[in-house]
Amino acid sequence: MSDAKLVAHLMGEADMQGSDGHGVLRLPMYIKRILAGGINTKPKIKVVHERAAMAVIDGDNAMGHLVVSQAVDLAIKKAKKSGVAWVSTRYSNHAGPASLYSRKALEYDMLGLYFAVGNANHLPPWGGMDMLLSTNPISASFPTDKEPPIVLDMATTVSSAGKIQVKAQRGESMPEGWMIGNDGQPLTDSSRMNEGSVLPIGGPKGYGLALMIGLLAGTLNGAAFGKDVDAFTDPGKNAPNTGQFIAAISIEAFGDVEGFKRQVDDVIRSIKASPLMPGFDEIRLPGEQSNRRNLYRVENGIPIHDKLKAVLNGLADDLKVEGL
Amino acid sequence: MSDAKLVAHLMGEADMQGSDGHGVLRLPMYIKRILAGGINTKPKIKVVHERAAMAVIDGDNAMGHLVVSQAVDLAIKKAKKSGVAWVSTRYSNHAGPASLYSRKALEYDMLGLYFAVGNANHLPPWGGMDMLLSTNPISASFPTDKEPPIVLDMATTVSSAGKIQVKAQRGESMPEGWMIGNDGQPLTDSSRMNEGSVLPIGGPKGYGLALMIGLLAGTLNGAAFGKDVDAFTDPGKNAPNTGQFIAAISIEAFGDVEGFKRQVDDVIRSIKASPLMPGFDEIRLPGEQSNRRNLYRVENGIPIHDKLKAVLNGLADDLKVEGL
Repeated sequence: MSDAKLVAHLMGEADMQGSDGHGVLRLPMYIKRILAGGINTKPKIKVVHERAAMAVIDGDNAMGHLVVSQAVDLAIKKAKKSGVAWVSTRYSNHAGPASLYSRKALEYDMLGLYFAVGNANHLPPWGGMDMLLSTNPISASFPTDKEPPIVLDMATTVSSAGKIQVKAQRGESMPEGWMIGNDGQPLTDSSRMNEGSVLPIGGPKGYGLALMIGLLAGTLNGAAFGKDVDAFTDPGKNAPNTGQFIAAISIEAFGDVEGFKRQVDDVIRSIKASPLMPGFDEIRLPGEQSNRRNLYRVENGIPIHDKLKAVLNGLADDLKVEGL
Repeated sequence: MSDAKLVAHLMGEADMQGSDGHGVLRLPMYIKRILAGGINTKPKIKVVHERAAMAVIDGDNAMGHLVVSQAVDLAIKKAKKSGVAWVSTRYSNHAGPASLYSRKALEYDMLGLYFAVGNANHLPPWGGMDMLLSTNPISASFPTDKEPPIVLDMATTVSSAGKIQVKAQRGESMPEGWMIGNDGQPLTDSSRMNEGSVLPIGGPKGYGLALMIGLLAGTLNGAAFGKDVDAFTDPGKNAPNTGQFIAAISIEAFGDVEGFKRQVDDVIRSIKASPLMPGFDEIRLPGEQSNRRNLYRVENGIPIHDKLKAVLNGLADDLKVEGL
C-alpha cells in the first residue's frame, strides 16, 4: 500500500469507529503542515536501537500513521518470539486515535498497549499554570471469544483535545469540568480553548498519569516531552518529534489463548449482568460505543458535519481535487 | 535473608515512605490468615511460563511480598538482556504498596512499572452496583540525576482501600467523593466502608483503567479477577490467587542512561518552576511526599497511631512476643 493510501485508510478507520476528533477533521492541519514543509513526505523510517524485546524507530518526521504502523508490525513480530515486545517512536507525528494501533494486536492473539505523547500541550502540572503536559492517551485492546473485543482508548484528561476541537468547529459549548480558564474559572466556550487548560482525570492522579506517559512514550525514546513539545497545530516547518510506544503481549506465552478469550468473555458478561446504579440505563465496556458506531457507519456511511464539509470542500478547491 | 525478615523489611519500608495503609497496619490481617492456614508459609514459588522477555511466577499462596520480590528480580535480570521484560504472578497475595516494587528497578538504571489486582473488590463497573473491580494500582518509577526519583503510586480510584482503612481505624471521616453509598448518596463515615463502593478517578475512565489492570495483572497470568476475587481480608483458608506484574525497562537499550536522567531532572525543574494556580502553594512531583516522609522518618522514627499501637500490642500478647 502506498504511504498516502495507508494514511487515508487509517484516517477512514478513525472516522468509522466514531473517533471524529482524530479522523478527517485533521486533514486540513496535515495538509497545511505538508505544504509548509513541516512533514517529510519522503521519509527514511528506520530502527535506531534494538534488542530482543524492544526497538526504537526514528520516523524521520513522516506522517505519524506511517511511523506507528511500522512500530506495531515490529512489536508483533518480536512478541511472537520473546512473548512481550515494546517498540517506541521518535520523530513521529500525530497518528490518529490510539485504539487504531492497540487493536492491531488482536489479529495475532495478542494484547496491545499503546501510549502517546500528545502533540500539543494543553495541561499544566497539578497546581501550576504552565502548559507542560498533554492529554497523553492510553489504549489497551483485549481479544475475546464471542463478545466484541475490549478496546480502551482514553485521554488522561477529562476530555481529549480532539473532542474539544470537534465542539469548536461545530460551535458547541463544552460541559463544565472539561476545561478551566486562566482565571481559574470553569471554561465552557469551546472557541476559547486556547485561553485555558484541560483538566486531568482525578486531579493530581491524571497529572501523574500524563507525566508517566510523557516520560515513557517521549523522553525514554528521545522524543519531545514537556517544555520541548512544539505544537503540531502550529503550521511551522519544525519537526514536532512526537513519541509513542506500542507494547504487544503474546497470550500464548502466558498460557492458553482460547481459555483467556473465554475468560474475557466471562468478565464482560458479569459486568453486563450487574444491577444498574440509579440514573443509568446500561453498563458499557470500553470500546463498545466505538464498535456500535462502526457497525452503524458500515451500513450508513460516515456522517460529515456541515462545518467540516465546508472546510474539506474549501481544501479540495485549493488543492484542485474533487470535493465531497 | 529469611522469608520473615524480607516481609518485615518490606513492611517497614512501606511505613518509612508513609504508605501507612500498606505497612504494619496490615500485620493483624496477615497473622490472622497465617493462623487460619490461609497463607502458605512453606511455599514453593516457581516459574511456570517463560520466554526471553517474560515469565509467569506461581507464588504457591506465599506472602505476596516474597512472590513479587522474585518477580522483580527476574524482570530486572531479563531486561538487562532483552531491553524490556514483563514478569507476572499468580497465586500471590497482598504485597504492600506498589511503589516498593517499581522503585527496585531504579538501582539498575531501569524504569519500573508495577500493576496489581487489588485483593478485595470495592469498585463496581461504571453505572453498575456489583463489586467486580478493585482499586487496582499503578506504579511507575523513573531514575533521575540530581533530583529525587519520580515514583508514581496511585490507586485507579479516588482513594485507595488502605487510606480508608487508616481512617476507619482512627475513627476519622472521609472527604466527600471518596465513596458512594449503596443508596447512591455520598458516603463519608469510614466505619461504614463495607456499605458502599469507592469511586473511580474520572468516572468511566477510572473504571476502564481498573478493568485494563485486572485483565493485564490478573486474567492474563491465571490469577483471579472480577467475580473470582475472594477478599483477602476474609480470614478463610482460601488462596486469594492475587495477580501482579512488573515490567522492567532498561534505559541503556533505548539510548544514553545519564542523558535520560538529566532530562528527567529537566522535566522536574520545569514543572517546579511553573507559576502556581491560585489556591496552591506548591507543585509536587509523584513520590515527592513519600520521599519527604521517608527523610523525616529516618530521623524521627515511624509514628504509630494509638489505635494501631493497641491492636499491635494485643496481637503481640496473643502471640506471646514482645509488644511496642
